[in-house]
Amino acid sequence: MTRRKRPTMIDVAEHAGVALRTVSRVVNNDPTVGTVFANRVQAAITALGYTPDERARHLRGGRSGLVGAAVRNLSAGHPVLGALDTTARAHGLTVLATATADEEDREREVVLSMCGRHLDGIVLEPVGDSHQYLSREIDAGTPIVAFDRPAGGITVDTVISDNAAGIGTAFRHLRGHGHRRVAYIGDEERIFTGHERAAAFRACMAASGEPVTGLVHPGVVAPARIAAALDAALRGPDPATAVITGNASTTLEVLRHLGSAAADLAIVGFDDFAVADLLRPAITVVAQDSDTIGRTAIDLLRHRIADHTRPVQTVTVSVELIVRGSGERPPHSGA
Amino acid sequence: MTRRKRPTMIDVAEHAGVALRTVSRVVNNDPTVGTVFANRVQAAITALGYTPDERARHLRGGRSGLVGAAVRNLSAGHPVLGALDTTARAHGLTVLATATADEEDREREVVLSMCGRHLDGIVLEPVGDSHQYLSREIDAGTPIVAFDRPAGGITVDTVISDNAAGIGTAFRHLRGHGHRRVAYIGDEERIFTGHERAAAFRACMAASGEPVTGLVHPGVVAPARIAAALDAALRGPDPATAVITGNASTTLEVLRHLGSAAADLAIVGFDDFAVADLLRPAITVVAQDSDTIGRTAIDLLRHRIADHTRPVQTVTVSVELIVRGSGERPPHSGA
Repeated sequence: MTRRKRPTMIDVAEHAGVALRTVSRVVNNDPTVGTVFANRVQAAITALGYTPDERARHLRGGRSGLVGAAVRNLSAGHPVLGALDTTARAHGLTVLATATADEEDREREVVLSMCGRHLDGIVLEPVGDSHQYLSREIDAGTPIVAFDRPAGGITVDTVISDNAAGIGTAFRHLRGHGHRRVAYIGDEERIFTGHERAAAFRACMAASGEPVTGLVHPGVVAPARIAAALDAALRGPDPATAVITGNASTTLEVLRHLGSAAADLAIVGFDDFAVADLLRPAITVVAQDSDTIGRTAIDLLRHRIADHTRPVQTVTVSVELIVRGSGERPPHSGA
Repeated sequence: MTRRKRPTMIDVAEHAGVALRTVSRVVNNDPTVGTVFANRVQAAITALGYTPDERARHLRGGRSGLVGAAVRNLSAGHPVLGALDTTARAHGLTVLATATADEEDREREVVLSMCGRHLDGIVLEPVGDSHQYLSREIDAGTPIVAFDRPAGGITVDTVISDNAAGIGTAFRHLRGHGHRRVAYIGDEERIFTGHERAAAFRACMAASGEPVTGLVHPGVVAPARIAAALDAALRGPDPATAVITGNASTTLEVLRHLGSAAADLAIVGFDDFAVADLLRPAITVVAQDSDTIGRTAIDLLRHRIADHTRPVQTVTVSVELIVRGSGERPPHSGA
């Protein structure tokens, strides 16, 4: 087993004794190359077994057909990533996805690495507040679209869910079923959606005139933290009778922690998840429209690729309440 | 907003009036370049604002730190992809994942596209029987590792689950709880794992002396197909009292189709899934060891990158029965 190194255009140029530009012109079927040079290059291409690769396409200014997607994680289900992929494919584009693990340093590293590979564009689920490290790439013409959260310090096309409307809908739904003491357990506030949803919840509580003490629990999505938040909300003389969870992972941890006691609590989850309908009771959720988010992100990217001068847009996608049972229980008699 | 095109090494060479090779040497701090040329190149680099990018790293034979992963889909949860990503990151590598959508043509297209980008290596969840289109890439030194299914017509490092042992364990578990008529509903047999699991099930039935007529149902993972398979298995004078499902999506579709009638059937699913423990009854599964599969795939790839002459390995990873309730019911009295 011997390792044959893939021949490059430079090898072809040296073998043919011509300039690299000439090889590039021949590979791109430029008719202005003289026959003698063209034949020498073709002979070298044949002799070396050279095939033009993606780099060659870049050197001649072509598009790669590849779109980078930097998302929070690759392991859990990610319906927006699926929608990005489906829409991209419908337009002849391939999505290369990579995980930021919700770490700012990691995001910068993987996104700049993708920029260095001259993909046709990048779809980003931003972490942190500052994305100015992308200014130079944007100036250089790299199309970038943010989704789920806005990018900070740069002006790029963005698709987000209507987080405030979603929390408002969940809150009014629970109030409509008689709940006065509603708790919120969600993501960390350093994450945009975590902040948006917690802030919207505080605004709902303030408007209702109910004190929020012990009811608002943003933080890391970790079993122990969520268990402690639940215990705090359900404790004391005036405990919560209902809970709004800020994301699907939190919903599942709440159900795990409560076990059969989940039957005593009304629950509305932000984000739908695969088996919400199979649980008993089935889980009422505020569902994000992942298909529309993914499709819109790719459409914005395609339009940006086609015309980098068009006005930058932020599209807010509606959310939808899906009533399944867990959010329609009256306050528990013990409360 | 004006679009500045990113300057290339070729631009630097032209601006400095030197050969491309000279620019490459300066960028790589080659001390054999004379001071005059080095200064001219540095001046051109400064004037044009050139920064060496990933292509430059390739031109000088460096590694990109990027690993491609071609997997069935990006939208549903993919625990192996998560494990690939985690292990890769621990070794300073970044995973770029792309979906084959379980289509052979799509796989060839996306994998060759990744090969053309000179990633450090590719981890592939193969579709179809022939992967000879990769022979040339393997000869050229591209490290490739297959997981979940072997690649056909090429010899590459491979990680698979012990599918036959898993089906055998599920079958004996159900027999041990008194089930004589066990049905199997799984993936299409054109997919390696679908074939392996269906074949193992047939072998189990044959060894038990039980006729298999109406009990073996490989096919597409689609609600109508799965509903029809279930109806066939549960119909007639001697219906199935237990079912083994060949993957998590099928398990969920079986539960959806049966609704409350699921309580009459013993169920063991191949593949664990996120909320199997939250369903009532909780679902007994044969769990694949996704962490070990992902970690092993990255380790094999790293070793292959380091030494392309080492012997090719196939690693079979054990599966584990997780008992939760659905697989421990006795045959329904009505059967």
